[in-house]
Order: sequence, then structure tokens, then C-alpha cells
Amino acid sequence: MEGYPSKLLEEAVEELSRLPGIGRRTALRLALHLLREDERRTRMLSEALQHMRRDIQYCKRCNSISDAELCSVCANHRRDQHSICVVEDIRDVMAIENTGQYRGLYHVLGGLISPIEGVGPAELDIDKLVNRIHEEDVEEVIFALSPTVEGDTTNYYIFRQISDTGVRVSSIARGIAIGDELEYADELTLGRSIVNRIPFKAAPE
Amino acid sequence: MEGYPSKLLEEAVEELSRLPGIGRRTALRLALHLLREDERRTRMLSEALQHMRRDIQYCKRCNSISDAELCSVCANHRRDQHSICVVEDIRDVMAIENTGQYRGLYHVLGGLISPIEGVGPAELDIDKLVNRIHEEDVEEVIFALSPTVEGDTTNYYIFRQISDTGVRVSSIARGIAIGDELEYADELTLGRSIVNRIPFKAAPE
Repeated sequence: MEGYPSKLLEEAVEELSRLPGIGRRTALRLALHLLREDERRTRMLSEALQHMRRDIQYCKRCNSISDAELCSVCANHRRDQHSICVVEDIRDVMAIENTGQYRGLYHVLGGLISPIEGVGPAELDIDKLVNRIHEEDVEEVIFALSPTVEGDTTNYYIFRQISDTGVRVSSIARGIAIGDELEYADELTLGRSIVNRIPFKAAPE
Repeated sequence: MEGYPSKLLEEAVEELSRLPGIGRRTALRLALHLLREDERRTRMLSEALQHMRRDIQYCKRCNSISDAELCSVCANHRRDQHSICVVEDIRDVMAIENTGQYRGLYHVLGGLISPIEGVGPAELDIDKLVNRIHEEDVEEVIFALSPTVEGDTTNYYIFRQISDTGVRVSSIARGIAIGDELEYADELTLGRSIVNRIPFKAAPE
């Protein structure tokens, strides 16, 4: 796609196509959509993005995205203050919150240790997590990181830093998803689900 | 996806997901990407969109998107002034320009006649096209609209308006795409390609 009939259109397409997963063709479709819509729509989109980027805060306790010094989870005194779930990203917090099955706190790393991408423990502010475990009344740390080399490396690094504190350390269960057919499960997941089998309960949980 | 940890994030996701083809999950991914990038990126994106929406112009002659009163095609005196290619949308202009095979002018309708969607000839400013044919030194009108009921209706409507002017009216050729296997062509295209067969030339064109 070349030969834009307008520099203004071309620049908008250029900026839109810097977004991940948005190619030039899609960017052009989005730009033309905005041109057809009321000017107010473009203004509201632009202002929402700028407002978010400029004014968003990160919870001073758990690093989660927040509109205040403390995120809504950390500010909620009815949450279990003895449990910290360690996640990579705010999307993981949202996914776990949506299950309604967890009542503790979080710690958002913002990434995983990855020597290849030059991300070390310092970039992830792991000291802050270790400080929380020393200073707060924490009884359990739950790892909920991706089951990748980076996730396992990060789990292990944090585990070594806190193994002398006496807190219980656990990891979310991995296995065959509820409703999934065994034959379509990947070998690694199926293998782990057999190794980490749990006692059978005759009544549903 | 519910329970956004930040109203600012939620509003940005809300606005992004109004764009066509962008669901909430994708919108969240885009918003988090902007949060990780430098603030300058979000500002440049927002400004490019607002600048485009506010300042873009439509060529007063052919309705194409333009940064000036006349688009670059209409302002180019070396273009063939006797031929007008009628297209639905600026993307069609760009696609035809990219072939390098057309040296005439365009007329951008901005849509197709569609009684179901409440789009009539007046919404498409077809009068403007008819006036051009009467007032400019036009010899040929080429229809390059989609081969749909709406496209055919629009072609026919315009044809009736200009049939008394004596201009030559043609339509872009439809047929089997170069390189395509016959067996995979849809029946309609294959059928038309036989009905509208052209004299065989032994030498490549």
C-alpha cells in the first residue's frame, strides 16, 4: 500500500500501524472509519489514550495499575492480608479476579526474568516483593507465572530470595482444563497432570 | 473481561474497542502496550488522529481524501482529463493507482446505493458526478464498483442519469485472477469470464 492521497491520512496510518498486531491495511481501515464517524469520536479516543498514559499510577504496594496510590485490592481491608499472588501482568490480576476464587493480595512483576531480552531481577523490582514478604504479615506466596523457561527462572529466583523467611510457597495448579478432551492436551500438560495427580473426591468440589 | 483496576485504563479500552474489528481483549492489549511505551508515542498517535480528523479535506472535484482543495490526481494536469473512474472508496483509488495502469481521473462515491442501509443517491452525491460529466470534457466513465447487488444498483442508477450524454460507459473486467486455478474460482466469476471472453492474443500483452 503506497501513494496515500493525504499526508494527514498517511501519518495517522503510520502511527496506528506501530501498535502491535495492526498492519498498514488494518490501520488504513481504522483511519477511514474515524473519518466517517463524528469528529467527537476521534477526540474522545485521543483524549482517553492521553489521559490514561499521563495520569495512570502504579500501586505503591503491589505495582498493579491504579488510579490512586494504592490499588483497589490493596486498599480493601477485607482482602486476606496474609497471601500474595505473584503475577506477570495486570491482565493476570484481572483474570484471577474474574474467577472470584482468590481473596488475597497480588504482586505484579511487570515481566519475567529473561537474559535473552536483557530483563534481570532489578528491572522487575523483585526486591520490593522480597521487602513486602519481610515487612508484611505474609504467610503464603503463590506463584502464578507462565509455565515457560522465563516463568520458571523467575519463580526459582524469587524462591531462593525468600526460602529463609518461612513463608509457605505454592504454585497454581497446572493440568488438563475442565471440559478439555485428554487426546487434544499437549504432552507436557498431560504429563504434569499425571505426576501431580490429586486424591479423588467422590463429591464434586 | 471485567473489573478494570483503573478507570483511566477502562475508558481507554472502551474507546479503543469502538473501533471496527477491535474487541475488548485486543483493546486491553493495545492500551497496556501504550503504557509500556514512552509517553511520546501515545501523544504522537493521539495527535496524528486528531490532526487527520480535523484538518483532512475532500477534493472539491472528485471527493477523494486530500490535504488541499484539489487532490493530487485532480491537480495533476498530465492526467487524462477525459476519463473518470467511479469508485466506492479512497482505498480503491489507492489500489488502482498502485497498478500504475490508469492515467485518468476518479470520482469517489463514498458508498453504494443500499435501500436496506438507507443510503440513497443523494447521500452519495451522485449529482456531483453527473454535473462533472456534463461540464467537464469527459469521454469515458469507467465503473469500478464492487460486483454486489449494491454495486450493480449504483452502476445502473448512474448509467441511467448519464446515458443521454453520449459518453462511453465501461466497467472494469471481471474474471479469473491471473495465477488462479480454474477449479477454485467461484461459479459466478467463472461464468462471467466465459460470457465476457476476449479475443485470444498469441503474444503476451
